[in-house]
Amino acid sequence: MPEKVRIALDAMGGDHGPAVVIPGAALAQSRHPDTEFIFFGASSAIEGVLASYPQLKAVSRVVHADIAIKMDDKPSQALRYGRGKSSMWLAIDAVKNGQADVAVSAGNTGALMAMAKINLRTMAGIERPAIAAIWPTLRGESVVLDLGASIGADAQHLIDMAVMGSAMARILLNIDRPSVGLLNIGVEEIKGLDEVREAGQILRERELPHLRYAGFVEGDDIGKGTVDVVVTEGFAGNIALKAAEGTARQIAGYLKAAMRETIWTRIGYLFARGAFRKLAAKIDPGRANGGVFVGLNGIVIKSHGGADANGFSAAVDIGYQMVRNDLKAKIGQALVPEARVVADAPVAGAIS
Amino acid sequence: MPEKVRIALDAMGGDHGPAVVIPGAALAQSRHPDTEFIFFGASSAIEGVLASYPQLKAVSRVVHADIAIKMDDKPSQALRYGRGKSSMWLAIDAVKNGQADVAVSAGNTGALMAMAKINLRTMAGIERPAIAAIWPTLRGESVVLDLGASIGADAQHLIDMAVMGSAMARILLNIDRPSVGLLNIGVEEIKGLDEVREAGQILRERELPHLRYAGFVEGDDIGKGTVDVVVTEGFAGNIALKAAEGTARQIAGYLKAAMRETIWTRIGYLFARGAFRKLAAKIDPGRANGGVFVGLNGIVIKSHGGADANGFSAAVDIGYQMVRNDLKAKIGQALVPEARVVADAPVAGAIS
Repeated sequence: MPEKVRIALDAMGGDHGPAVVIPGAALAQSRHPDTEFIFFGASSAIEGVLASYPQLKAVSRVVHADIAIKMDDKPSQALRYGRGKSSMWLAIDAVKNGQADVAVSAGNTGALMAMAKINLRTMAGIERPAIAAIWPTLRGESVVLDLGASIGADAQHLIDMAVMGSAMARILLNIDRPSVGLLNIGVEEIKGLDEVREAGQILRERELPHLRYAGFVEGDDIGKGTVDVVVTEGFAGNIALKAAEGTARQIAGYLKAAMRETIWTRIGYLFARGAFRKLAAKIDPGRANGGVFVGLNGIVIKSHGGADANGFSAAVDIGYQMVRNDLKAKIGQALVPEARVVADAPVAGAIS
Repeated sequence: MPEKVRIALDAMGGDHGPAVVIPGAALAQSRHPDTEFIFFGASSAIEGVLASYPQLKAVSRVVHADIAIKMDDKPSQALRYGRGKSSMWLAIDAVKNGQADVAVSAGNTGALMAMAKINLRTMAGIERPAIAAIWPTLRGESVVLDLGASIGADAQHLIDMAVMGSAMARILLNIDRPSVGLLNIGVEEIKGLDEVREAGQILRERELPHLRYAGFVEGDDIGKGTVDVVVTEGFAGNIALKAAEGTARQIAGYLKAAMRETIWTRIGYLFARGAFRKLAAKIDPGRANGGVFVGLNGIVIKSHGGADANGFSAAVDIGYQMVRNDLKAKIGQALVPEARVVADAPVAGAIS
């Protein structure tokens, strides 16, 4: 465990670049004084903003990068012009070569995942990385993965995600055996995809350490917080996340319109203003900002591209927590031979 | 077009049976006097409730059925004991043999789809039925399908759903060429599943009548109302629907708690009460109740099992609308040879 958590930031990522990344880092640093930062990107732009944050500046280093990855480029394009020299690549590279413990970027998700895979590679015993998010629920928070790193998943991928997601949930929820559900349609054992059924059977029959398999869950169980970890393949996971975000924004829109409707509702709003502000924060999809790339030899956090400084600081906080509580070691602890679909296959040194 | 719309109701379906189905039918009948009803189920229970609704009773017929399908049985079980004699089967059968124009049930979705498929069969030119729903959006309403009739979909199935969904949207939105989007992750053409890409290419290149292809959409576009029709395979569609419903319920929970927080918020609530009631109706997932089974030789509507009389009446309304505006003919109009993946294959008399 390092004394300081060293955070590499892609200063050019996201819709706003240094104007959001640096104030966001400053907010995170005020909550976690045991942090150090390396900013990658256009040094003049970074130095310009950093000058207004002397406390942050004192624990930061700036590394110039000429190239910024564009938000809409395809991963293959981004790799062609950004490999080895973009701010995004260099932030990930800092994790690889041990200069940083975690990299955070609000940039292009596809490019970030492609660069992270190529540069960090998957952990021994894990075939594919996944994107995990912290989902606010009626009971607190749950971990949901995969949100779009891959499309489709076989039983082994789903079990790997159960292992990785439960490691994340142990850190977030501070419990030893988080409950894990497989996302499906209909809770009857008969329904759903073959891979999901196979993964469910294996998780039920073999007692994996550090997780408790709780069966199938449906889309509405995510918001209820029925389980601590929800596992699904990336297509459905991404659509679930965005459908939920869309619904939250939709209802916030209705609520605003309803409160402006008559003089009485306006008066009502004045009285209940504080509660409305808390509510708005609660249903803000940016609040739990920060997708965690799990399954790689190094931790990478993806912030929403449109996040403001507060949102970006939440992503930095998540990175900090994952390092301080040693996510990689916790994944290793759960990655036992019983977690293999073919039980006798070697786990290739995955147990740390 | 029949003078009256004849509606077959599975009186035993749903969590409440005749106690909800009959008052629901009465509400629908008060809005649409040009309707007639056939109730299938335990005749004594039905007659008992129907006695309180003389206006409805005057246009209704009761057909006794000993057997009611249980909500949690697997489709195969339900078929074993319910085929040919359950209230659910008989309601569908009334559509098949021309005694009714539409069947509505709040029963077991899997059993209803299995019985509808076996008894009504798919329309000529359509390989698979789908479940379509009306989704409230910030712009009004959209049609979303498939919500779980099948898992997975090839390009042809997706195109068929574009055709069927746009026929439904023409009725609901009263426009001639509804816009259609394919649900995907990321709007770039490069991303997503092969089948989705292939369907997108075909829809873009061939100009189908009565629909306007608008490209890929993401999960958050559903609630925005970006397109009139959202097409996806049933696993992701079911999860999107339930994730959105879960989020709506979650936010309603937060809102209630927020309004009870202090004396000021309670006072605020009193002033804004009317707006809150309207809001609650708007975010009630039951409001747009009624999944439409499309692609069969007959219209079947699935109501939520937990719907109250109001919710059930909404499902009956949708059935009424689909019959009055001739959903089947509208699907036929759009089912041109250009809607085939292999363009030269015959459409087997699908064009009406």
